[in-house]
Amino acid sequence: MTSALLTDHYELTMVQAAMDAGTANRRSLFDLFTRRLPEGRRYGVVAGLGRVIDAIENFTFSEAELAFLVERGVIRDNLAHWLADYRFSGDIWGYAEGEVYFPGSPVLSVEGTFAEACLLETVLLSIYNHDSAIAAAASRMTAMAGGRACAEMGSRRTHEWSAVASARAAYLAGFASSSNLEAGRTYGIPTIGTAAHSFTLLHDTEEDAFRAQIAALGENTTLLVDTYDVEAAIRKGVELTQGRLGSIRLDSGDLAIMARQARDLLDDLGATDTRIMVTSDLDEWQIAMLQGAPVDGYGVGTSLVTGSGHPTCGFVYKLVARADSDEPDAQWVSVGKKSKGKNTLGGRKFALRRLGEDGRAEAEVIGLGTPPVNDGNDRDLLVPVYRGGEVVYGATLDDARRHHAATRAELPDAALRISKGDPALETIILDEVGAQTTNPYQAAPVVTNL
Amino acid sequence: MTSALLTDHYELTMVQAAMDAGTANRRSLFDLFTRRLPEGRRYGVVAGLGRVIDAIENFTFSEAELAFLVERGVIRDNLAHWLADYRFSGDIWGYAEGEVYFPGSPVLSVEGTFAEACLLETVLLSIYNHDSAIAAAASRMTAMAGGRACAEMGSRRTHEWSAVASARAAYLAGFASSSNLEAGRTYGIPTIGTAAHSFTLLHDTEEDAFRAQIAALGENTTLLVDTYDVEAAIRKGVELTQGRLGSIRLDSGDLAIMARQARDLLDDLGATDTRIMVTSDLDEWQIAMLQGAPVDGYGVGTSLVTGSGHPTCGFVYKLVARADSDEPDAQWVSVGKKSKGKNTLGGRKFALRRLGEDGRAEAEVIGLGTPPVNDGNDRDLLVPVYRGGEVVYGATLDDARRHHAATRAELPDAALRISKGDPALETIILDEVGAQTTNPYQAAPVVTNL
Repeated sequence: MTSALLTDHYELTMVQAAMDAGTANRRSLFDLFTRRLPEGRRYGVVAGLGRVIDAIENFTFSEAELAFLVERGVIRDNLAHWLADYRFSGDIWGYAEGEVYFPGSPVLSVEGTFAEACLLETVLLSIYNHDSAIAAAASRMTAMAGGRACAEMGSRRTHEWSAVASARAAYLAGFASSSNLEAGRTYGIPTIGTAAHSFTLLHDTEEDAFRAQIAALGENTTLLVDTYDVEAAIRKGVELTQGRLGSIRLDSGDLAIMARQARDLLDDLGATDTRIMVTSDLDEWQIAMLQGAPVDGYGVGTSLVTGSGHPTCGFVYKLVARADSDEPDAQWVSVGKKSKGKNTLGGRKFALRRLGEDGRAEAEVIGLGTPPVNDGNDRDLLVPVYRGGEVVYGATLDDARRHHAATRAELPDAALRISKGDPALETIILDEVGAQTTNPYQAAPVVTNL
Repeated sequence: MTSALLTDHYELTMVQAAMDAGTANRRSLFDLFTRRLPEGRRYGVVAGLGRVIDAIENFTFSEAELAFLVERGVIRDNLAHWLADYRFSGDIWGYAEGEVYFPGSPVLSVEGTFAEACLLETVLLSIYNHDSAIAAAASRMTAMAGGRACAEMGSRRTHEWSAVASARAAYLAGFASSSNLEAGRTYGIPTIGTAAHSFTLLHDTEEDAFRAQIAALGENTTLLVDTYDVEAAIRKGVELTQGRLGSIRLDSGDLAIMARQARDLLDDLGATDTRIMVTSDLDEWQIAMLQGAPVDGYGVGTSLVTGSGHPTCGFVYKLVARADSDEPDAQWVSVGKKSKGKNTLGGRKFALRRLGEDGRAEAEVIGLGTPPVNDGNDRDLLVPVYRGGEVVYGATLDDARRHHAATRAELPDAALRISKGDPALETIILDEVGAQTTNPYQAAPVVTNL
């Protein structure tokens, strides 16, 4: 399905007006970045790049889209003619998927004609604002879970296709599995699931339900034990499997207390290998509070797919440089809006993660000129994504997952605190001659850009 | 595209186990409802029914889906064989789209075999939890906007397909238009948009940009006037159109003050018909605060598509009744989980809005027996959606929009306050003999159900 109409009306009217004025082909450079992290968050997580590439590849206008746009008066024939052949032909670079980011980090840069780069604004922002919000929440949860497995189970609490993207973002940030079957098919993410309360209630007795489940799914299945009486259910599950029950799931009540009681009971019954999975309103704080409880895995739903209080990231897509005329050999000129609280740092940028001798991250360095001589401890953050309209980024979802784990591990210890705090790294802005300059994104307010 | 894998893994494993146990064909009734409104909200808005019907119609398994499920070990051949012919064959009824709802309102009820009704759980919940969250936020915004137009502009702040559904939900709740082109094509929603700051920055001067925009889009266009200096931009826009400029848009700063200054300046320049549109971090509170400012329209982004603090509704899908055996003439039996804080009211329900002599709503009446004799002031809330597997619901999106406006107008005045409060109507539960009984959803805690 085409992504070409997952776009704001004004992108087409801007291109129409620029085409009529003869400015649509000016070379332009757009940066995708955020002026701030959500309140109290210490780092962000880049997610969505793989989906962005799919969206760009599918950004094509067929007769159906063009007819709609012309009939509605959004565009005229000259633009329709141009859109019929639309294929992004420029360059894109940015942070690798899974990388952490900070206020001002140029996580994606798009260079092309104004027309071709402008059109992608909304779909790129939609994907990054959604996927990175989920990944940031997921990363906090997996950090609190330590070595215990987190399972993504939030599909029912978000839009049906956001659910698929959420499963992908959660896996990228360390979740072990998802309940979402389309995510399993599309992205190869391991899927899990056994039974809900309705399955128990369908049967005449809990024992009937457990017998049916064990017969179909085996003794290694997970029995949901809180439909009636938890203790009786655990005893029954152990009895029916001769102590070889794979897992139980607790979905209500005080999970720390219940997990302790369930563990003691399972051990008393000899089911020492039976695992305990907990679900029910988990978020990073609940997971942290359960660190001392005998829990083997966490199922997380609502708080994950809603970004744990921050369902969007505040990414914007800003023109930061353009050709200074319509001539083929035109020079680049940096541009940027100066509205109150909505400053933009104009110009083409480099981005480095400054690392200390111990390999730990010390600062985010964003510069407008030539990168400083690398003393061996800086990591270049920008990787090529498109070159001349061709995809050159080949990292897989598993690559992104590994990259996230590695770059999160580089951060100062304070980065992983779930209490509210400042960004874990300072962003240092270097001007064209390499001198440190004012960071326009310090203490920037909440931003909506339309 | 099929919706059949927009499903949690456990729905398939439950059906597999029930099929093997011979219980998959028991007649079952599931209710979709919420135990509470988001904190402080006074009413909810049913949205998503039209999309639910599309999802059910597209809930079909082709070879590709079946091969995936079998290869992954989610299902076995007997279930794959059954799924290949899957078509929902049961009955669905519920609240009309656009209707307001309260804790416990049975907004959708699905009756069929356990297998066919169970499979729809996730996709129905995803759609209702998302769309109704957006509609509820949108309804508060349009209530505060009064007769002024609200434009939906949040596509970039949410998943690219959530954006399309959000535009639909916002329109249902009284928004006049959307920026989202796919929403325009798919749902016929009016789309609007003119230019962003990048368009001004692309050109050598603001005047060049304004000239280009006016040439392409006409004098009735909306000029974005805050890229450099607002006053100068307004003067230029009026000059270039000889006072016939359609609108200006303010996207930063203190909007109440700026709107007043802009209005005075426009009037001084003779541009008394030029409208003022404001954008930038608007939500229902900002819109309320701007009621006294000379503003003609509001563009709302982030807060709308994220449900203004409540991006999901807490809808659950619960088995409330089932056949008491596998026999064809089996009796129905009410069922319900009794977990702490997660009670479910078992049994088949009726639902009425009790209206006073003045036509204003007084209570939500949910009952398990025969509806009370209608004294002429009760409105039956349940409408048929599917009968014997056939769609019988024919309301359009415009019908839903009208229905929402009408049902919101019925509510007590306090319902439209945006301060935190209790649900605007009490929910009265009647037992099988018509006696008022305890409401299991009073003061229920936050719910996650997996």
